[in-house]
Amino acid sequence: MIEPRLLRGLRDYLPAQMIARQALIEKIRRVYERYGFVPIETPAIEDRRILLGEETDASELKIFRFDDPEGRPAGLRFDHTIPLARFVALYPDLPRPFKRYVVGPVWRGDEPAPGRFREFVQFDIDTVGTSSMAADTEIIAIIHDTLVELGLTRFLIRFSNRKILNALMVFLGLDPFWATDIFRTLDKIERVGLEEVKATLTKQGPEGVDQREVPAGARCIGLAPEIADRIMEFVGISGGSPVETIEQLRRFFNGCSAVDEGIVELEQILSGLKAQGIPPERFIIDLSIARGLAYYTGPVFETRLLDLPTWGSVFSGGRFDGLIGRFSETSIPATGASIGVDRLFAALEQLGLVGTAPSKTQVLVTVFDQNQLGVYQQLATELRREGLNTELYMGEETRIGRQFKYADVQRIPIAIVVGPDELSRGEASVKNLRTTFGAAGKQHSVPRDQLISHIRSLLEAVE
Amino acid sequence: MIEPRLLRGLRDYLPAQMIARQALIEKIRRVYERYGFVPIETPAIEDRRILLGEETDASELKIFRFDDPEGRPAGLRFDHTIPLARFVALYPDLPRPFKRYVVGPVWRGDEPAPGRFREFVQFDIDTVGTSSMAADTEIIAIIHDTLVELGLTRFLIRFSNRKILNALMVFLGLDPFWATDIFRTLDKIERVGLEEVKATLTKQGPEGVDQREVPAGARCIGLAPEIADRIMEFVGISGGSPVETIEQLRRFFNGCSAVDEGIVELEQILSGLKAQGIPPERFIIDLSIARGLAYYTGPVFETRLLDLPTWGSVFSGGRFDGLIGRFSETSIPATGASIGVDRLFAALEQLGLVGTAPSKTQVLVTVFDQNQLGVYQQLATELRREGLNTELYMGEETRIGRQFKYADVQRIPIAIVVGPDELSRGEASVKNLRTTFGAAGKQHSVPRDQLISHIRSLLEAVE
Repeated sequence: MIEPRLLRGLRDYLPAQMIARQALIEKIRRVYERYGFVPIETPAIEDRRILLGEETDASELKIFRFDDPEGRPAGLRFDHTIPLARFVALYPDLPRPFKRYVVGPVWRGDEPAPGRFREFVQFDIDTVGTSSMAADTEIIAIIHDTLVELGLTRFLIRFSNRKILNALMVFLGLDPFWATDIFRTLDKIERVGLEEVKATLTKQGPEGVDQREVPAGARCIGLAPEIADRIMEFVGISGGSPVETIEQLRRFFNGCSAVDEGIVELEQILSGLKAQGIPPERFIIDLSIARGLAYYTGPVFETRLLDLPTWGSVFSGGRFDGLIGRFSETSIPATGASIGVDRLFAALEQLGLVGTAPSKTQVLVTVFDQNQLGVYQQLATELRREGLNTELYMGEETRIGRQFKYADVQRIPIAIVVGPDELSRGEASVKNLRTTFGAAGKQHSVPRDQLISHIRSLLEAVE
Repeated sequence: MIEPRLLRGLRDYLPAQMIARQALIEKIRRVYERYGFVPIETPAIEDRRILLGEETDASELKIFRFDDPEGRPAGLRFDHTIPLARFVALYPDLPRPFKRYVVGPVWRGDEPAPGRFREFVQFDIDTVGTSSMAADTEIIAIIHDTLVELGLTRFLIRFSNRKILNALMVFLGLDPFWATDIFRTLDKIERVGLEEVKATLTKQGPEGVDQREVPAGARCIGLAPEIADRIMEFVGISGGSPVETIEQLRRFFNGCSAVDEGIVELEQILSGLKAQGIPPERFIIDLSIARGLAYYTGPVFETRLLDLPTWGSVFSGGRFDGLIGRFSETSIPATGASIGVDRLFAALEQLGLVGTAPSKTQVLVTVFDQNQLGVYQQLATELRREGLNTELYMGEETRIGRQFKYADVQRIPIAIVVGPDELSRGEASVKNLRTTFGAAGKQHSVPRDQLISHIRSLLEAVE
């Protein structure tokens, strides 16, 4: 016998979870389509050079690696953004802008943790081929509408702009080589706190080692403490209103024009959000938002659930104007965001916002007498033709009470019994299992020609 | 620059294909749910020992192999049946019977061919935990209903029973060791013809080599020609009606009781199909159906499209009562079938039964004046709130005619224009792009408060 185990960091979805997850994905899809986005799908397996790119930090990406049957280096996608960039470069005739969504699993060989798996579903939305901040505004509006559609009201979309962070590097006279390391460190403020972030920024490497030669993730940034203090001052900028935040930002930069473009972009997004009627209490400019990925170039956004403050972001993204240029002669701007479906689903579960029904079946046709199987098969067929989700009982229980119990566990609301009495009278007994504790519900015998309408009226009553 | 290529045997889905594919999957799902099946999902990555089992022919399975981060042997699932068996063994509290569907990609490193890819989607349905032929009958009824739901009428479900093939082995005095080799050979009749199948069955290996020691797929069965003739006679049994086929079958077996159980099962399925109202012209008993997989134990089925006779089966399966026992102390019977979604989709495309729209967007809000962007954002938001799929134009074209062209290519039926005249009058111009060749359609200026109803009436007209 082979032990029926799952490999580490992987999991199954049982029916109740899957039914709720399908409903979740369907709601997200409807919002995306309402904004004019169209679906695509790319393979799970990509050329490994495409996945890893020329990132200096490729070694940090724990992708699942293997060779294809021809011996070419391959791997499983770890997000949908790199495959999108490859896709856009491969099909030059796509409309511009190209607004696509994609939903599907991605794989990362990270250390598993509660809520962190090695295979998880991401639902992405991206607009390719426009530099307009209207596209970024729309992404934020979609994040908003999606969460509202899912029954959430208490959430906060926080956004900033990489151009402002880049301006900070210029303003403080920092070498752009360290930008990604610094941004990734800032991104951890919420998780580890200001003190630890400052410690990381100022940590010096051992004497005589050129830290630029050390791989990303292991090297020491080694900023001067006064520079780190200025950075801490910068990320501390925040106010009640976006207008105040922008004012403080201008003051901090003290006339340095490097920040102008980033501020204009913030302002364009703010006016767009107003035009699109996004309630001001649902978003904020937060300069501590950096997002870890190296490829972001403009607006960056993330979303926290106020009732789950330690949960991390459930819907994040940003602009990545340079990424498609990795695979294409022409540089093509793009912006987008991604939902971690499993993380969001787990959050909704915590908040009691997901269904728990293990089945969508409406009627169980019981088997009173195995010799009359044809009668039950015919009856179930009739109900299905009327559009009712109908299961014919196929278990080993011969007693009707046990068959009712099966329906009850599956939360099937109605069971039909046709015994010899019903059969001789041309009737069927209809049992409403929803009115019951256990299996002692109401049961009515109705003529066969009234069966459908009787079932429909019961189903309306239980909804 | 990294070349944006796909690895061999892999492909992308563009929006028009994806929209049609989603509609296909949704229709299939509705049928499955009407029969009371519930969804599950399992990871793409499984323990390699689970995938390969103790099949003697494991080397034939071209699975994608790698190790997980802990160095455990892993691989990508090559079907949904093995993961189902593992799943059922892992969760002993699942209801019995457990009726589940699953849709998702599977991976095989086979040589690509037209219509054969290394990653492809299978949509499976299986009933676990019952030996009743009612379950197998239901699978055939579902195959029927699904294809009808997809607009197909000219198809033929062909079924047989492995117990009859096993009885043939007994009746002809053949060693069970060769059963799978013989069944796989028979399964190729349609593709390679009777003569070549007979040649394969009778082919002798080189002198002095024990063919049982040769790996499956490479070894020679070496039947005596008169035995092969008897097998050919057996697979030739077929008649107009199932009743005639069963009569011929009894005559062939000449009173040998080994065949009785298989015949009883055929008869139970036949009476069930009749009770469920499946038209008799849509199914046939075909004794040449063996299905290649080693794990089938009872009824086996496949489905051909009459208008694409060389297409192969689009919906196949069978009973596999032994498979779950690989992973479980208790043996659990099961039966089911699988749709190759991509193969079926390609077939429907050939038959002109799939949509080709590259978008589900209903309205394009054009940008007449970039300085009025807020007006257009607000307008698009209003339309979306009314449930209309609405795209705000974000491309680089400033001329409205070019923006209409964009909508036209995307087959968006309606475009809205708000220029200075409309703005001053509180109106919007509505252009119906469906009445046009190119972009010269009708355009009406309507007051803003009548806009929604005007759009709705146009959309009703174009449908």
